[in-house]
Amino acid sequence: MKDYLIVHPWKIIEEGFHPEFNKVSESIFSLGNGRLGQRANFEEHFSGETLQGNYIGGVYYPDKTRVGWWKNGYPEYYAKVLNTANWNIIDVYVNGIRVDLATAKVIEFHRELDMKEGALRRTCWIELSDGTQLKIFSERINSLENKELGLIYYKINVIEGAAEVECRAEVDFDVRNEDSNYEENFWHQYKAETRKDVSIISATTKKTGFKVTVAQKVQILQNHVVQSLTPLEERERQVGHFVKTSAKKGDEIIVTKFVSMLSSLNHPKEDMNKNALEVLKSAFNNGYDYYLNAQRQIWSDKWNDIDITIQGDESAQQGIRFNIFQLHQTYSGDDYRLNIGPKGFTGERYGGSTYWDTEAYCLPFYMSTAEQSVAEALLIYRYKHLQKAIENAEMLGFKNGAALYPMVTMNGEECHNEWEITFEEIHRNGAIAYAIYDYINYTGDDQYMGEHGLEVLIAISRFWSQRIHFSEKRQLYVMMGITGPNEYENNVNNNWYTNYIACWTMRYTIQSIIGLKEENPNHYQAISERINFDEGKETAHWLDIIDKMYYPFDEEYQIHLQQDNYMDKEQILVSELGKEDLPLNQNWSWDRILRSCFIKQADVLQGLFFFQDEFDLETIRRNFLFYEPRTVHESSLSPCIHSILASKLDMPRKAYEMYVRTARLDLNDYNNDTEDGLHITSMAGTWMSIVKGFGGMVVRDGVLHFDPKIPDQWKSFSFKLKFRGSVVQVFISNNRTEFKHISGPEIKIKVKEKVQSLSNKQDQYEFETI
Amino acid sequence: MKDYLIVHPWKIIEEGFHPEFNKVSESIFSLGNGRLGQRANFEEHFSGETLQGNYIGGVYYPDKTRVGWWKNGYPEYYAKVLNTANWNIIDVYVNGIRVDLATAKVIEFHRELDMKEGALRRTCWIELSDGTQLKIFSERINSLENKELGLIYYKINVIEGAAEVECRAEVDFDVRNEDSNYEENFWHQYKAETRKDVSIISATTKKTGFKVTVAQKVQILQNHVVQSLTPLEERERQVGHFVKTSAKKGDEIIVTKFVSMLSSLNHPKEDMNKNALEVLKSAFNNGYDYYLNAQRQIWSDKWNDIDITIQGDESAQQGIRFNIFQLHQTYSGDDYRLNIGPKGFTGERYGGSTYWDTEAYCLPFYMSTAEQSVAEALLIYRYKHLQKAIENAEMLGFKNGAALYPMVTMNGEECHNEWEITFEEIHRNGAIAYAIYDYINYTGDDQYMGEHGLEVLIAISRFWSQRIHFSEKRQLYVMMGITGPNEYENNVNNNWYTNYIACWTMRYTIQSIIGLKEENPNHYQAISERINFDEGKETAHWLDIIDKMYYPFDEEYQIHLQQDNYMDKEQILVSELGKEDLPLNQNWSWDRILRSCFIKQADVLQGLFFFQDEFDLETIRRNFLFYEPRTVHESSLSPCIHSILASKLDMPRKAYEMYVRTARLDLNDYNNDTEDGLHITSMAGTWMSIVKGFGGMVVRDGVLHFDPKIPDQWKSFSFKLKFRGSVVQVFISNNRTEFKHISGPEIKIKVKEKVQSLSNKQDQYEFETI
Repeated sequence: MKDYLIVHPWKIIEEGFHPEFNKVSESIFSLGNGRLGQRANFEEHFSGETLQGNYIGGVYYPDKTRVGWWKNGYPEYYAKVLNTANWNIIDVYVNGIRVDLATAKVIEFHRELDMKEGALRRTCWIELSDGTQLKIFSERINSLENKELGLIYYKINVIEGAAEVECRAEVDFDVRNEDSNYEENFWHQYKAETRKDVSIISATTKKTGFKVTVAQKVQILQNHVVQSLTPLEERERQVGHFVKTSAKKGDEIIVTKFVSMLSSLNHPKEDMNKNALEVLKSAFNNGYDYYLNAQRQIWSDKWNDIDITIQGDESAQQGIRFNIFQLHQTYSGDDYRLNIGPKGFTGERYGGSTYWDTEAYCLPFYMSTAEQSVAEALLIYRYKHLQKAIENAEMLGFKNGAALYPMVTMNGEECHNEWEITFEEIHRNGAIAYAIYDYINYTGDDQYMGEHGLEVLIAISRFWSQRIHFSEKRQLYVMMGITGPNEYENNVNNNWYTNYIACWTMRYTIQSIIGLKEENPNHYQAISERINFDEGKETAHWLDIIDKMYYPFDEEYQIHLQQDNYMDKEQILVSELGKEDLPLNQNWSWDRILRSCFIKQADVLQGLFFFQDEFDLETIRRNFLFYEPRTVHESSLSPCIHSILASKLDMPRKAYEMYVRTARLDLNDYNNDTEDGLHITSMAGTWMSIVKGFGGMVVRDGVLHFDPKIPDQWKSFSFKLKFRGSVVQVFISNNRTEFKHISGPEIKIKVKEKVQSLSNKQDQYEFETI
Repeated sequence: MKDYLIVHPWKIIEEGFHPEFNKVSESIFSLGNGRLGQRANFEEHFSGETLQGNYIGGVYYPDKTRVGWWKNGYPEYYAKVLNTANWNIIDVYVNGIRVDLATAKVIEFHRELDMKEGALRRTCWIELSDGTQLKIFSERINSLENKELGLIYYKINVIEGAAEVECRAEVDFDVRNEDSNYEENFWHQYKAETRKDVSIISATTKKTGFKVTVAQKVQILQNHVVQSLTPLEERERQVGHFVKTSAKKGDEIIVTKFVSMLSSLNHPKEDMNKNALEVLKSAFNNGYDYYLNAQRQIWSDKWNDIDITIQGDESAQQGIRFNIFQLHQTYSGDDYRLNIGPKGFTGERYGGSTYWDTEAYCLPFYMSTAEQSVAEALLIYRYKHLQKAIENAEMLGFKNGAALYPMVTMNGEECHNEWEITFEEIHRNGAIAYAIYDYINYTGDDQYMGEHGLEVLIAISRFWSQRIHFSEKRQLYVMMGITGPNEYENNVNNNWYTNYIACWTMRYTIQSIIGLKEENPNHYQAISERINFDEGKETAHWLDIIDKMYYPFDEEYQIHLQQDNYMDKEQILVSELGKEDLPLNQNWSWDRILRSCFIKQADVLQGLFFFQDEFDLETIRRNFLFYEPRTVHESSLSPCIHSILASKLDMPRKAYEMYVRTARLDLNDYNNDTEDGLHITSMAGTWMSIVKGFGGMVVRDGVLHFDPKIPDQWKSFSFKLKFRGSVVQVFISNNRTEFKHISGPEIKIKVKEKVQSLSNKQDQYEFETI
């Protein structure tokens, strides 16, 4: 747990330099615009602890996997988001001394991430070894106005001493991934070119052949006078310009960098140089302030619709805004080829690939805080991967168009290889089906089912119906060899959650077939023929499974049993563990963890969260009271689900306890791993803890339902939701709940069995919070 | 399946060169003397397919493991037997053309492994590109007389053409392991030295620091005249001498190589050069024929006691002798630091490390075919590793001197890392306990228990008692998270075999404690104190477990169930599979294999084999009839157990079918993997199939019991057994069984409830075979 950052409602602030936490800060102060992203590396050379990171969404490399013992069906590679050209560099030499915050005396230091404006700023006052003192101010944005553009405004003031100053504005493409296996370099075919005041460099990824072109235009002023630039010495992997000038005390040098970054995902390779230069040209003509103002305006508009305010707890306020900000920096939904890696653009871990986190955690966030097309793009991403999911299932021996979506993917191909995950953690398939339901239920976009949803649902149902088999012994259907969301159990039989979501999928698929047949029989017919669907026979089989599925249940505790024989385990509670045991994954052998009853993250409870309307409150309570005390929450995705359920069960202390574990996970570096990057996907869980947890928001039959609660620690909180073209604001204090129509068409709100319509800004719906 | 070798009772013969199978031949024609071993690489340069392999027992390297996702408790390395200096080399140039069987025209070729004499011979008649014809004869031994000595007799006859012949007799230490991870070189600190007619080279392994010194003395004669040698050019990693001479048609050149190979396991490093030269000196003085004759004599003495003859099936005869021969080449039991890798000295696979194969398969073979000290050395090997097994268990969270022996080891440390094996395939611990029982039961060496056995037994029992826990649900003890011998199931609960052998271990430990207390209370007291053994409390707990252990059982089939919920699996028989399915491990995804009911190798049946006296015949039959049709025998250790049980159950056709699958596994390369090396440990299973299977040999209360059967395909067979200082010969034909006392004290034989004593060479015990 770290506590070196200053609490502020709209900013993350580091006051005074903390080099020992620099990698943590680099993660936290990350910038992104949904297409580009980067860690908060310094512009100047830094010889201290740093993880250099610049990423372009969708540009990945199929790194060879390191595996001890190969299993048939494993993929050949592990996709990795690539470290791409470092375009930040402004390498400064003063009287021949390289400016380096690790070696200079840092007199003052202030770094801030301005979440209101989407900018990273830094001020520092340093003294070099020869006594020269400089003040440096830098401001950086990853433009939302033009998502192929990054800009830096960098100012040096000479405070003490006369100085010969050399500023080298550079783009460095000689980059590697820290997590590459066998220390491979992933780029080749470098091409560098420098013109008068523009330089341009490109490289292509090995194997995948993505080309990235980065062009830089620099302007350097000394005391408002433009300095003439000299190209840097010719190198294969670096380009840029420099200025060498004499500066005296009181002088000011301003470097403005415009950098365009294009990838062949969006441009024909042969046009990339030209296009990159065009982006630069118009950027330079518009000027730095134009983009800074646009950035402010776009963020201001965003916040207007999506902000959450918390009164009485500034630290919680900062935490939730940070989460919302980072999620919107990571994904903007304008390109269905992109998705949300667990670390976003803030680090290399988890390969930047897509997990079921997207469907189970991120989708609800984007549905409520962005245009509908953004959430739809997340679904289309999987729709586009359907064929590869079918091929993946075929590789494992499934037939007839059954689809198994990968556990980890970049382009639809599986790229994870631990048999107990790759082949067995198949509940992910259920989450992808559930997301279709969730999306249509929330947005009312019924068209989606016929256009894309049903094909995916049928393919997943086909998978479940083959993966499940009839046990002659039990005279019931069973599903064996499963890893549930709780990855501290592997290869179990009849994981309740997986059994449930499998049957739910088949049920929902059948309902959707019936719906589409009524609504658009021709369209249904066309789909059915295209995928060779034998409706009568296939759905009869599904119905038989739904009818005769086995669900493990414990009679004594009256709970859904996580898996067969779970009760054979020694039943110990987390509260009985010693301090030296936790976290288990750092202190216990894998053997001991696996054999224990301890649960990594919500498993049965994940199902009760998804399908809460199918269970009565007492059932949810019994299961919560049984499982929560056995859960160690060693996945960042765990506390939020527990917080939501605790809210539902009127357990405010537990709800708040769980909320705190998720809300400032990175800002306080609770798990001591923020230096690798932020926990982007679990940030959506924090948002859910407030909106779905404390707010109790659920959509039933097109109506927004709420069940407001407020933690004792807060005076009030308020959030806005986008819902079917409208924006509604919800305000909850400890004695009053208020709904306000902000924009859009009429919207229905239901609280405690009462429905109210709100249709213009004057409409409010207010009642007492219990 | 390959069939290019000639059937011969005492030899393995390749007639005509089969370069396409050369790597298979290199494995099959391997030589070894228990300390050294090598693949049958040619003396001349060979540019065709070859796997160079020369090994020295006990010299290993801790190679980094390749693992995708690390688990707490995994070892850091994977031990590998090292490829060491290639001392075979006689590189021949004729008129400047390098002799190479891959490029020369091979007119005649004959290669034979003479199992009677322990020698490898080769004759070939070749024509080089310039028309020169040579006949080459080579003979090679890995001396049993001096186990640090290898010898080659190499003769060239010029058949056609006049030739300038250059013979380069070399030792090449520039070797790598083909299976090294990251292509690392494992040797360093090379030192080469060449004197008049002796050369010497040494190197040291990285990390482990084993030094190996190889010294060579060569004599080259032309037409019986000694040629003067020239040292080879100075190099870091190669040494040797050459002769360049003019030879005309009819001339004969003879190269005799004496090579001593010493390791720092047996010599102080600083004396190794001196000692290596001394070995050479006395070898040269004794002369080549001395060692060849000694080799013949030693093998003749061995065969005298251990031979198995089969009348009416020469192919089976060759097969069994080949297996006996290779086992005795691999392990001679004179060094407790050595053991039996699954590939012996014939390849790199499986790292040359020790598996439970040793205890379960090899020990019975060596008990019956070698001095008692040989089997004892196998047990001492594990005794010496007890402390490391305790540390290994501690790493996983076990306490109080509990020991978990490694799945794979070289020096006692675990070096395998798949969690489902490393942490879960713990039945190996039971096999190590069983071996103590097996050894004492066979040899009558009761002393062993007090001296070494009991400490190991208590440590293993302590492990079981902690690994097993009481299920409140069942009110019985259970063992969860297990991989049984059938590795096509992972992480199951209550693997019957493991549960059984665990309780058996505790039971046997308690019996042994009682026995030792009676016999030697002081000695027991000393052990007990040393290991801090709380007999009352600990054995009470063990007894409680033995009393209340849960064993999965299927009421319908009345069989011991392989594991919990096995009957939930879809029950298909191997006979229902298509040709395209088998072997499963090449045609099915791991997912499909794991979820199927198919069994890789004997699991429940392994237990019924070990503990056959604890079950009635009908129980064994029911289980055999249930499990065998579900078993795919995709481990080379599987068929032999089934063959033995089938014999016991009077199922001669099944017994013979299973025998055939094991007996010529390598000679016919059934699994298409002999090129990697021979399946040394499963060869012991072949021997057991005859002696314990057809012969029905079991020891009960110090008496050799037999239950003779004979396959229809054989006229008769005969084997000799060493038993408690005696040798007895058993002859079984289809109408007559005969026991003959060969040597040693009186021996009791029991057949069909009748006991007979044999005490001198005239004694025979004869009766009708049913």
